[in-house]
Amino acid sequence: MGAREWLSRGGRAAAAAAPASAPASPSAASAAAAPAPSAAARSTGERLKATLRRGPEALSPRALRRTLAELQGVVDGRVSEVEGARRAEALATWYAAASPEERHDCWLLMSEHFGPDQAQVRAAREAYEKALGTPDEAQAEIRLRRAYVSPRTRLLQRFSGFPAGMRFLVDLRAELLPRLKADKRLLPLDAELESLFSTWFDVGFLELRRISWDSPASLIEKLIKYEAVHDIRSWADVKNRLDSDRRCYGFFHQRLEGEPLIFVEVALTDAISDSITPLLDEGAAPSDLAKATTAIFYSISNTQTGLKGVSFGDALIKRVVETLKDEFPRLKTFCTLSPIPGLRGWMAKNAPADLLQALDDPLHLPAKSPQRAQLLAWAARYLARELEQGKPCDPVARFHLGNGARVERLNWAADPSPKGVKQSYGLMVNYLYDLKRLDRHRAMLAQGRVAVSSQVESLLD
Amino acid sequence: MGAREWLSRGGRAAAAAAPASAPASPSAASAAAAPAPSAAARSTGERLKATLRRGPEALSPRALRRTLAELQGVVDGRVSEVEGARRAEALATWYAAASPEERHDCWLLMSEHFGPDQAQVRAAREAYEKALGTPDEAQAEIRLRRAYVSPRTRLLQRFSGFPAGMRFLVDLRAELLPRLKADKRLLPLDAELESLFSTWFDVGFLELRRISWDSPASLIEKLIKYEAVHDIRSWADVKNRLDSDRRCYGFFHQRLEGEPLIFVEVALTDAISDSITPLLDEGAAPSDLAKATTAIFYSISNTQTGLKGVSFGDALIKRVVETLKDEFPRLKTFCTLSPIPGLRGWMAKNAPADLLQALDDPLHLPAKSPQRAQLLAWAARYLARELEQGKPCDPVARFHLGNGARVERLNWAADPSPKGVKQSYGLMVNYLYDLKRLDRHRAMLAQGRVAVSSQVESLLD
Amino acid sequence: MGAREWLSRGGRAAAAAAPASAPASPSAASAAAAPAPSAAARSTGERLKATLRRGPEALSPRALRRTLAELQGVVDGRVSEVEGARRAEALATWYAAASPEERHDCWLLMSEHFGPDQAQVRAAREAYEKALGTPDEAQAEIRLRRAYVSPRTRLLQRFSGFPAGMRFLVDLRAELLPRLKADKRLLPLDAELESLFSTWFDVGFLELRRISWDSPASLIEKLIKYEAVHDIRSWADVKNRLDSDRRCYGFFHQRLEGEPLIFVEVALTDAISDSITPLLDEGAAPSDLAKATTAIFYSISNTQTGLKGVSFGDALIKRVVETLKDEFPRLKTFCTLSPIPGLRGWMAKNAPADLLQALDDPLHLPAKSPQRAQLLAWAARYLARELEQGKPCDPVARFHLGNGARVERLNWAADPSPKGVKQSYGLMVNYLYDLKRLDRHRAMLAQGRVAVSSQVESLLD
Amino acid sequence: MGAREWLSRGGRAAAAAAPASAPASPSAASAAAAPAPSAAARSTGERLKATLRRGPEALSPRALRRTLAELQGVVDGRVSEVEGARRAEALATWYAAASPEERHDCWLLMSEHFGPDQAQVRAAREAYEKALGTPDEAQAEIRLRRAYVSPRTRLLQRFSGFPAGMRFLVDLRAELLPRLKADKRLLPLDAELESLFSTWFDVGFLELRRISWDSPASLIEKLIKYEAVHDIRSWADVKNRLDSDRRCYGFFHQRLEGEPLIFVEVALTDAISDSITPLLDEGAAPSDLAKATTAIFYSISNTQTGLKGVSFGDALIKRVVETLKDEFPRLKTFCTLSPIPGLRGWMAKNAPADLLQALDDPLHLPAKSPQRAQLLAWAARYLARELEQGKPCDPVARFHLGNGARVERLNWAADPSPKGVKQSYGLMVNYLYDLKRLDRHRAMLAQGRVAVSSQVESLLD
Repeated sequence: MGAREWLSRGGRAAAAAAPASAPASPSAASAAAAPAPSAAARSTGERLKATLRRGPEALSPRALRRTLAELQGVVDGRVSEVEGARRAEALATWYAAASPEERHDCWLLMSEHFGPDQAQVRAAREAYEKALGTPDEAQAEIRLRRAYVSPRTRLLQRFSGFPAGMRFLVDLRAELLPRLKADKRLLPLDAELESLFSTWFDVGFLELRRISWDSPASLIEKLIKYEAVHDIRSWADVKNRLDSDRRCYGFFHQRLEGEPLIFVEVALTDAISDSITPLLDEGAAPSDLAKATTAIFYSISNTQTGLKGVSFGDALIKRVVETLKDEFPRLKTFCTLSPIPGLRGWMAKNAPADLLQALDDPLHLPAKSPQRAQLLAWAARYLARELEQGKPCDPVARFHLGNGARVERLNWAADPSPKGVKQSYGLMVNYLYDLKRLDRHRAMLAQGRVAVSSQVESLLD
Repeated sequence: MGAREWLSRGGRAAAAAAPASAPASPSAASAAAAPAPSAAARSTGERLKATLRRGPEALSPRALRRTLAELQGVVDGRVSEVEGARRAEALATWYAAASPEERHDCWLLMSEHFGPDQAQVRAAREAYEKALGTPDEAQAEIRLRRAYVSPRTRLLQRFSGFPAGMRFLVDLRAELLPRLKADKRLLPLDAELESLFSTWFDVGFLELRRISWDSPASLIEKLIKYEAVHDIRSWADVKNRLDSDRRCYGFFHQRLEGEPLIFVEVALTDAISDSITPLLDEGAAPSDLAKATTAIFYSISNTQTGLKGVSFGDALIKRVVETLKDEFPRLKTFCTLSPIPGLRGWMAKNAPADLLQALDDPLHLPAKSPQRAQLLAWAARYLARELEQGKPCDPVARFHLGNGARVERLNWAADPSPKGVKQSYGLMVNYLYDLKRLDRHRAMLAQGRVAVSSQVESLLD
Repeated sequence: MGAREWLSRGGRAAAAAAPASAPASPSAASAAAAPAPSAAARSTGERLKATLRRGPEALSPRALRRTLAELQGVVDGRVSEVEGARRAEALATWYAAASPEERHDCWLLMSEHFGPDQAQVRAAREAYEKALGTPDEAQAEIRLRRAYVSPRTRLLQRFSGFPAGMRFLVDLRAELLPRLKADKRLLPLDAELESLFSTWFDVGFLELRRISWDSPASLIEKLIKYEAVHDIRSWADVKNRLDSDRRCYGFFHQRLEGEPLIFVEVALTDAISDSITPLLDEGAAPSDLAKATTAIFYSISNTQTGLKGVSFGDALIKRVVETLKDEFPRLKTFCTLSPIPGLRGWMAKNAPADLLQALDDPLHLPAKSPQRAQLLAWAARYLARELEQGKPCDPVARFHLGNGARVERLNWAADPSPKGVKQSYGLMVNYLYDLKRLDRHRAMLAQGRVAVSSQVESLLD
Repeated sequence: MGAREWLSRGGRAAAAAAPASAPASPSAASAAAAPAPSAAARSTGERLKATLRRGPEALSPRALRRTLAELQGVVDGRVSEVEGARRAEALATWYAAASPEERHDCWLLMSEHFGPDQAQVRAAREAYEKALGTPDEAQAEIRLRRAYVSPRTRLLQRFSGFPAGMRFLVDLRAELLPRLKADKRLLPLDAELESLFSTWFDVGFLELRRISWDSPASLIEKLIKYEAVHDIRSWADVKNRLDSDRRCYGFFHQRLEGEPLIFVEVALTDAISDSITPLLDEGAAPSDLAKATTAIFYSISNTQTGLKGVSFGDALIKRVVETLKDEFPRLKTFCTLSPIPGLRGWMAKNAPADLLQALDDPLHLPAKSPQRAQLLAWAARYLARELEQGKPCDPVARFHLGNGARVERLNWAADPSPKGVKQSYGLMVNYLYDLKRLDRHRAMLAQGRVAVSSQVESLLD
């Protein structure tokens, strides 16, 4: 899902030769001679040995040492930031051509050899503890905090210092994430990346931009690629979603130019939508904007796997609501039309077998069949009562309810697509963003209660 | 020197009423009810008492508690980032109208009541120490690092979340800095700000822009205001510095729109300049760009006091050199014409009294007078031999030599202005940026040796 | 072919009611009372009668008079330009909803009732003839020229005075052009439009812009719509034509925003292309720009039927050549790969029947068959010898040779598409733009000789 | 007043050599050989002789013939527009270095040798007269109109075809205008320029832009230079005029980039201003925009002498009114505060000597002196009754009343500057733009009646 453009520039072909002849950085020699700045003293040898347990595609012991020296050269305190960034860029060029195994080794080096200097940390901590309550406490706290800023942080910051460096780091993490479970040694690197991304991609640094049919084709192509809720089938499909009665907004970051980090698709209507079908109908005439009272958020997609854990969605929705209210003062209702991706799976574990069987072909159930009513009741219960560690267990519900929305309405046959039937028997749900109650709803949720409309409430009895 | 625009919007007038009726944040009540998220448990009472030792203009005990509650409301984990930023903005509005004493109290609250939670830190540290060397080490390190992310960090991040918030934080620190010596309790707040600014204003997030006579008048007005080396006397003066044979570049940040964080003025010439006079002569004809071989960096000014400790200068010079080489491939020499601000003061302590007396009117010394030669020798020694803690003691030398430049040439009567005579008997120095030797020179300096030209070397014997 | 966007906003539906209740212009009453400014005196009545010979969908006599009054109100000398433009806009709104017959009547009114005032012209002419050779000649010439500026010119200028007015006029002429043959009374209106467009769309007022995959999707959609040489089949097709080894440029005009008036597609290659097939192959890898020596202009399309007679193509090619030379100094050869649309039709009249028969399936002719050689010889003759009124009779040849290019090479099976075979037996031709000889070639052509390469020369013997 | 930037690039120095060695156009030889395209046949020799009556700085006979050939080369029908524009640019380069006398000769050549071809015109006219009333009338009219499009038109169009060409033509006319009275042979060239400028600078092609303190310094410098009503004394003065309670708008044209053709300065106030003093007071606090009900147009300046006869002012004011109403819906009154430049001169001829004497020091007249009342009555009469050829004789009155404004109020001591006292005894007038009555007022004026407020009416009795 995440874009891997940066990494795919090089490719596997050049990899075999790379470790032997490479690291291309001009500073290899001098850097190698330098002692590793911090954790090195204690454990370089042992740690390197531990790293060298990998297969035939991995770095040779010699290449491993050389790569470590390269990495140390990047954070070498004696070179300028500018030179450090240049070295980081050279390493990234090597990385682009490296094999998956070589990359894994590179991650291990970054994760295991650039931790905080234990001796320094210990000294700072002891000083801090002595200082607690004295006039020196403040200074001691500062020194302790600095001791904890690991060389790994500086290493990654230097990678962000060349133009394509941010793309490199985001793609690196996207590649790293699926390996974390199998190799916990990578966790510190991942945590360091997440921590830096949280600061760099803080909402204050994101730019909200409207995406329209007048946006660059290269950008609209990315909507097609990244759309995660209702697949975009063609250019005609995406053009319909950017028609005069629609709005699409994304968050952009100056260091990932042309890349929407997240985007939301909105339809402006005169009532809360109860089906996705007309919204995706390319042939439907656009509705009359002058009569629009309601904004339907019908799709929201994250695009960068590598930014996992950095949340944009809540801020995006709230900024979009403000932007829409400025443009269309008549808008009164802000509401989603959302899938319920976990419903069928949860039902399979919890609902009686006879109901499940009756729901085999839900779209053709008669209007007044008892199974319809039962399904709606189960769905209401799923959304409004099923919490895991205090949070809604449906992932989409978790997002919107966590933002302070409430469960407004369940809609029968609202998504008759195979995916919709497979996920939730064709059901979709509206989450209502009542701007005056968002924080009240969040507070309720913090106490384990999900906010629902009276209509949904009635399904729960 | 730092811009205080944000803060001056409000002004003192509204302050008297503010603490009583304010904090305007709608969340005041609920936030006040919430327990302070971290350090509170241990010491809120005592710390508040300590804070309450200030004069009549300061916050009353009630206002102090209320302001603390406001600040806690900003980081309240139960409200969304968006709501947190809104609360921060309300507080900033109150702050803009607050008195200096009230502001000082506000700083103390931010500095003393939002430190890391000691109990949490202790637990995390103990777990980490146990885990060292085990497979859980990585996880433990992450938890420990998280425990050290203080509520103060989150507090300041939320202030950065509204549009004028970055301006607010930078201005707040500019106001805070001069008080640090007198009140060390403010140090943690200052350290937190510096740490966040270092990440936010990392060179990778700065945009290099050329400033020309076609730039906005409001921006050029800022050059006039911020120029720190050779005062800009008028619009005609600044126009001359932006003429066809000049270049001016600044670093800009997306969150401080229209504000150059640092800027450098460059003259394109056919030889290394030996005097500032023709460069500042508004009536001089521009030189022929086609013959330019040399770029003279004759002024570099930081503009934001509040960003003290975040260094831009080295990267600026190197980015400008690259930009100039692209535009003018014939440029071969990159060189400064710099003041020597500390020379006279250092001479006063170190040079013999008779020389000092003879130098009373240095501009009128005969060309071959021995005092000229003596002064040049003392100046060479000052620049090339006088280190403090391993660094050149002249502040301008410290900057350029730290970047890897070398001391190229001393110029007699190069700045005949009163300021020039007062600082350095009218002497100026060229620092040469030899791109291939920058890191070599830095390495020399790290070993205590200053790189100098053979000409300057000869003055040292 | 021409964009009709402006006109299609309204549509036929509203037309029936329009003439009775409309003209919407608020000035209808007063304008109607005013005497027609110029030609009116002599012939309004007669001319109106003549106009009233149309069918049942046309304007009623009353609506006709009213529309005439509206048009006169637009040029009423007593109202300001601003008010005139407002009235023109009101008329254009009525026009958008009018029926084809009503529109035709409107054209007739514009064509026949706003000619130069004959009496004024006569007086001015007599004065001019008397003044010839005297010191008053200059003044008299000016007065005569002013007398010839017809109210029709002012009328159309006022239509250009509201934002969508230029679009209106261009679309009006696109609609008018096919009717000229059948109704010569429309010629003056057409001539006036062409004359004004020639001034307004003078090359000096056009902006050359590159069109790339980063251009707005709405603009790229227009390439798909307007491409006249090699139909664009899909978004993948157009993306290929905007790939890294391609360039596409268009001329734009500030009054037709987002509309390319003409555009050209260029491939950068290392040799003169001999077939369109690889250029249109979406799967082909982009060629290496570093090796590009040759720019192939393989498609050039006008987009605005309404601008017929205003020529952009020559200037476009020459501006693009300059732009490409700036970007790629290694480019040496500028050349087209062009269809020969008139070849088969001309052959059908001129070539012997047996050759025509043998050419029935030209793509499968054996490589050394005599018919191949014969066809090439006939094609060379067609391009190099067949002139009509001194100009090449093939329309594409007329354009490129008129610009000063020469016939460089004929390419067998260069366009194997059904259209290519149907037009020219699959042959295509390269026209070479040798920048140093363009005017020499134009001069040759003015003397009836077509410039050809020696290779093509040899086919002619 | 007009900018002469283009012409001053070259300068007089190079002129002596120019005519001999120049014309630089590569086409000199071939163009000279070509017959002059039109008027040439009849009179080239005689006309050249007539031209050759000038002084020693003028073109030599040989240079004159050569320059004529150059000019003819520009419109040579056998070269492309692109080549024609290149030749025009070469001539313009020569012109930039030519002496005033040489330039005058060049104008004469352009004025006298590129008129319509008399034989062609005569034939077309005869055909037209025969065709009147027949079906061929339309075609004949077109041919006649084309015959009148002189080679001079094409010549000037080609000069507009290179980037700096429009600047060249506008500056050429600015230089030409003051010579027209003394040399009527230049009138056709002037008329041709005015006619082309009227089309090229039609209001539809102008862009309204706000000018603010964030506009380029180079643009604001032009305000200082061009301001024609109340001189701008300094950058502080102009900054005040661009403060938060002010607006400044100009019309710009794409071919004169960065050049405001006309600009207007507006103050937003809560009442109709009765004095210019507070508006020009740099120290005055900006007024509160939230309370603004009135827009005061207190200065409007044309900048391009060369565009004389092309009027922008009416459209500028009306577009600015619309723009202001969009931004500030509360604005109700649009009004000027204007000088009365012709008052004192007119009084000197018409008022009694004793009044004139009493008005010697008007600013110190006691508030209730009869002379005050008398002066106001004379001023009212001057503005409301004194027409010349049906138009107000005061030039500022002529402009605003011609736009449809009315005389609203006379203001005592409204401009106490020496200039204000000298022009109008310190009086200023408000002209009111009542949007609903503009055309009614214009119609009144067309009948010889000036619209005035009841207050001014009362002064007239």
